[in-house]
Amino acid sequence: MNTRPYACSFSLRSRTLGLAVVLAAILGTVDAEAQDRCKEPPSLPSWNDTGPRQAIVDFVMRVTTEGSADFVPVAERIAVFDNDGCLWCEQPLYFQLFFALDRVKALAEDHPEWREQQPFAAILADDKEALAKLTEHDAAAIVAATHAGITTDEFAAVVQDWLKTARHPVYDRPYTELTYQPMLELLEYLRANDFKTYIVSGGGIEFLRVFAEDVYGIPPEQVIGSSVKTRYEMRNGEPVLVKLPEVGSIDDKEGKPININLHIGRRPVMAFGNSDGDLQMLQWTTAGDGPRFGLLVHHTDAEREYAYDRDSHIGRLDKALEEATARGWTVVDMKDDWNAIFADGE
Amino acid sequence: MNTRPYACSFSLRSRTLGLAVVLAAILGTVDAEAQDRCKEPPSLPSWNDTGPRQAIVDFVMRVTTEGSADFVPVAERIAVFDNDGCLWCEQPLYFQLFFALDRVKALAEDHPEWREQQPFAAILADDKEALAKLTEHDAAAIVAATHAGITTDEFAAVVQDWLKTARHPVYDRPYTELTYQPMLELLEYLRANDFKTYIVSGGGIEFLRVFAEDVYGIPPEQVIGSSVKTRYEMRNGEPVLVKLPEVGSIDDKEGKPININLHIGRRPVMAFGNSDGDLQMLQWTTAGDGPRFGLLVHHTDAEREYAYDRDSHIGRLDKALEEATARGWTVVDMKDDWNAIFADGE
Repeated sequence: MNTRPYACSFSLRSRTLGLAVVLAAILGTVDAEAQDRCKEPPSLPSWNDTGPRQAIVDFVMRVTTEGSADFVPVAERIAVFDNDGCLWCEQPLYFQLFFALDRVKALAEDHPEWREQQPFAAILADDKEALAKLTEHDAAAIVAATHAGITTDEFAAVVQDWLKTARHPVYDRPYTELTYQPMLELLEYLRANDFKTYIVSGGGIEFLRVFAEDVYGIPPEQVIGSSVKTRYEMRNGEPVLVKLPEVGSIDDKEGKPININLHIGRRPVMAFGNSDGDLQMLQWTTAGDGPRFGLLVHHTDAEREYAYDRDSHIGRLDKALEEATARGWTVVDMKDDWNAIFADGE
Repeated sequence: MNTRPYACSFSLRSRTLGLAVVLAAILGTVDAEAQDRCKEPPSLPSWNDTGPRQAIVDFVMRVTTEGSADFVPVAERIAVFDNDGCLWCEQPLYFQLFFALDRVKALAEDHPEWREQQPFAAILADDKEALAKLTEHDAAAIVAATHAGITTDEFAAVVQDWLKTARHPVYDRPYTELTYQPMLELLEYLRANDFKTYIVSGGGIEFLRVFAEDVYGIPPEQVIGSSVKTRYEMRNGEPVLVKLPEVGSIDDKEGKPININLHIGRRPVMAFGNSDGDLQMLQWTTAGDGPRFGLLVHHTDAEREYAYDRDSHIGRLDKALEEATARGWTVVDMKDDWNAIFADGE
């Protein structure tokens, strides 16, 4: 297995300073935290020793080895990740949609008119047949009702409360426990190799930012997502940002490279997705000059998670799967390539 | 003078590791680069020992001293800077407007109709009287003609070429030499104290990103500015982003906190501006909980640079100057507080 010696995270990279650290360790003067950081290079234990792991490790070694023809300076090491179906589960519905449905129920008391008004009536009646037929127009109405009209701070508090109490209807555990262990390891591994890791998700940017730092180690400024417009106003002499029922950006398909350009302004070196919504992000990333890496997570494991691709209405993977072959992107077969699925080891 | 001992940039912060480095230095095993980084703590030599320097240093010491009631974790150390009139000169016109005017001239051959069409005819005729009366509508037409219709990569190349050859009409030197030396030192000083420095400018995001990394040490992902919308399309099988003649965002006044929220998603700890266009950014920043710092650069030096405030049509500073007193923001008097103005020492 072709692994790269791990560069200590306090970046003592010169051989002479390395000697100083060894010396200091012998003399017992290296503090525990620094030792700890040096001891365990992040690795990818939940990845089987199959093609995708090999491809990732080989690529990272090539771009981080000084003197290599494919060396990429640290400032340019940008890796972008889709969220739904790539970093966490997206079945049987996008988790943020569960949030929105719960939110409609929580707000129903203040909206007696919803009992007669679709799609709200269907949500309140738990009418699964009607819910399965939600249109984009319905989705926009739900987002406007549940993601707007409050300040950004208020919204963050609502999401935080929901994440603490809500449970996935099938797995019966908090949504934030349904992140993929192999992908958490990959995020760590890339960061240990001086990559800046970004989320680029069709999900809401303000929704994602509530948990991305805790759950993925990704700070708010490295989260890109769909957004509504906001209005700046003074309330009791204090400024607030009010979320408006008006779309700012849909961060899906063509929206992904557009927002990568707007937020990052530099073409990523690596891109990770799982559906046709990520196709343009992978195209944009891998069309750049120099070494580039694209990867798709293919959900093939009906036993441990879900198996779906071309015919799924959530996370459809069709065109991007074709293009993966043509463009040499890596495809993860979850069943064969991952020995663990969720972050709790199940 | 109350200065903080400089933490070496390879972050050997524990006393024991510090000892290891001393030992290594004695043994001659510390490499030259590491020594260099440790030798010279960034300081603020172009700032006179007056109130603003003191206020900055005191504040930074408070928020970076572990155990201090005002300690701010590294992840939250965000500092935002306006560009025009704050990091570089903005007189007698915003530099990007000079770019746009030059661009109209460069494109005129392909647009014979401009000779009869305002505001282009006035630009081509160098009609200063007419140019002084440009309306916002005119400005929009100029931006559409000069900042759209080409790909993002093409636009970056055009700006890069222009910056190499264009010279400021009064100072007769490249625009990128008209950055303020005290502010360059401040950027370095804050980064040495683990602040992430951002530009939040009314100027164009794609224009700024061409030089921000070289000139300010600010990478593209930390540049926020005004933008046009872009369209993703395939050209000869390769994806491109085409700049459209349609405003995406005006990053001025209320637009600044709105875009800070969109791009950073975390309230800055420090904000630096110089005009009423920065008022809302300073309000938003300093209204946050915990220690916050706001600073305005007041252009008071007609001899070394320009003196202007309430009546200027470029960089008007009126309401924000009032509010600085009420809210306790620091105001730099360029004449008294800076012993150098431009980056070349003049």
